[in-house]
Amino acid sequence: MNSIEKYNQRAEKINSLLCVGLDSDFEKLPERFKSLEFPQLEFNKWIIGEVHEYTAAFKLNSAFYEARGDRGIKELKMTMEYIVKNHPDIFTIMDAKRADIGNTNKSYISAIFDWLDFDAVTLHPYLGQEAVQPFLDRKDKVSIVLCKTSNKGAGEFQDLEIDNKPLWQIVAENISLGHNTAMGETKKWNKNKNCMLVVGATYPEEMKKIRKITGDMTFLVPGIGIQGGDLRVVMKVGLNSEGLGLIINSSRDIIFAENPRKEAEKLRNEIRKHKDVS
Amino acid sequence: MNSIEKYNQRAEKINSLLCVGLDSDFEKLPERFKSLEFPQLEFNKWIIGEVHEYTAAFKLNSAFYEARGDRGIKELKMTMEYIVKNHPDIFTIMDAKRADIGNTNKSYISAIFDWLDFDAVTLHPYLGQEAVQPFLDRKDKVSIVLCKTSNKGAGEFQDLEIDNKPLWQIVAENISLGHNTAMGETKKWNKNKNCMLVVGATYPEEMKKIRKITGDMTFLVPGIGIQGGDLRVVMKVGLNSEGLGLIINSSRDIIFAENPRKEAEKLRNEIRKHKDVS
Repeated sequence: MNSIEKYNQRAEKINSLLCVGLDSDFEKLPERFKSLEFPQLEFNKWIIGEVHEYTAAFKLNSAFYEARGDRGIKELKMTMEYIVKNHPDIFTIMDAKRADIGNTNKSYISAIFDWLDFDAVTLHPYLGQEAVQPFLDRKDKVSIVLCKTSNKGAGEFQDLEIDNKPLWQIVAENISLGHNTAMGETKKWNKNKNCMLVVGATYPEEMKKIRKITGDMTFLVPGIGIQGGDLRVVMKVGLNSEGLGLIINSSRDIIFAENPRKEAEKLRNEIRKHKDVS
Repeated sequence: MNSIEKYNQRAEKINSLLCVGLDSDFEKLPERFKSLEFPQLEFNKWIIGEVHEYTAAFKLNSAFYEARGDRGIKELKMTMEYIVKNHPDIFTIMDAKRADIGNTNKSYISAIFDWLDFDAVTLHPYLGQEAVQPFLDRKDKVSIVLCKTSNKGAGEFQDLEIDNKPLWQIVAENISLGHNTAMGETKKWNKNKNCMLVVGATYPEEMKKIRKITGDMTFLVPGIGIQGGDLRVVMKVGLNSEGLGLIINSSRDIIFAENPRKEAEKLRNEIRKHKDVS
């Protein structure tokens, strides 16, 4: 089974497009976890227990584990072992925003896809397809490429226009379907149909265009909540023809809420409501 | 002392622009190291001992340590402790190619600048200045932004033209000097004069233009040797007005050579020779 299929099956089974971001920044953990031997792991286990029934995907941002050095990486590994063992049908994303030149990527792949056993990883597009081909060659795994990011200053380079097309549009074209792109046969990021795009909830007009360009491709969508993205609008412009195609991420709003379960259920319910309307 | 100053002082003191890349891929280590308790650390200590007198900088690519999980990260840390203790005047670069949105970068900064104590880190530009500002705010450390990378397929996005200017040129303009850029006052990547650029040795024509755009800015230059970059040409087009401005990286060609010391000395000598000619 291809990993995109894994996401779709889970999303359909539980009727949810929710991704919970386990951005388990040690500094922000509730005090009762901080003194434990494995604070990030224990916090994650607690959150996973609270939210898993509403959750189609978990996204773990590498930075919050790297900040604690080898101890953090160990707890990232233990968290992944816990998820793979107890919730093997939930799609897992390492939000690592990697991309290096060819050879070096093989080491990232060993770490992220093999040792940690994530289903997907986020990647920067700047080096081009040739550089990240080792990621794309992993047919069993998913490469999620940054296209239009959710941050306020995303446009500095992403909105620059090449023959009246913003850069994010060319990224979307090149990465979506090889035979659809302006670059012709040589650009086939998605030859193995294992690519997704990052499209921020804060740019719904752009998302609408990217949906049109990319057919039924799946988007990882950060930026709901604190960053200001509007779920209703995102669902309206972003769903694909199968009522899927979106991974709606929420991190701090859920995991650091007073009641994470309630927040996850609430967001899942809102996703369902807007899905029925779309 | 600003970290760019640290590089310049070391480069002048030993009359070398050589950076040795400690890409200490476990699989490629000589057999005698593989069975040790800390194989990457012990290999690095040996290499450092052989090459340090020719070396102005060490570059450690994160991928090769991450590939061994928490054990690799631990050996990365131990390597950095060893360098900081024994060779505190050698400039250190974590080739991590990071960049996330604001808040998340703080965790990368804790890991890379504080815990590991690197002088510099490599960054992707795609998210824009606003996203990576926490890196730029670290006046004591250096942000080295990918501009024109050394890989064959670098042009897929980097060469796209915006009003007759390739994207790499706009990246170079925005990142070099705030008051020099087309974007005006709001874009000031280099306000703290702590930015460098990655410019591949495989694109000397581009390097020549980037030198013109950026004044005396320092370039980290991968791509000499196996990738095909010509040192003579790079030195001719890349040196700044002070006979500095280049960090010439060599990784596998030195560390996996039969005699790393000899290779490092040879490349240092070539750098000196071409420097005198330029």
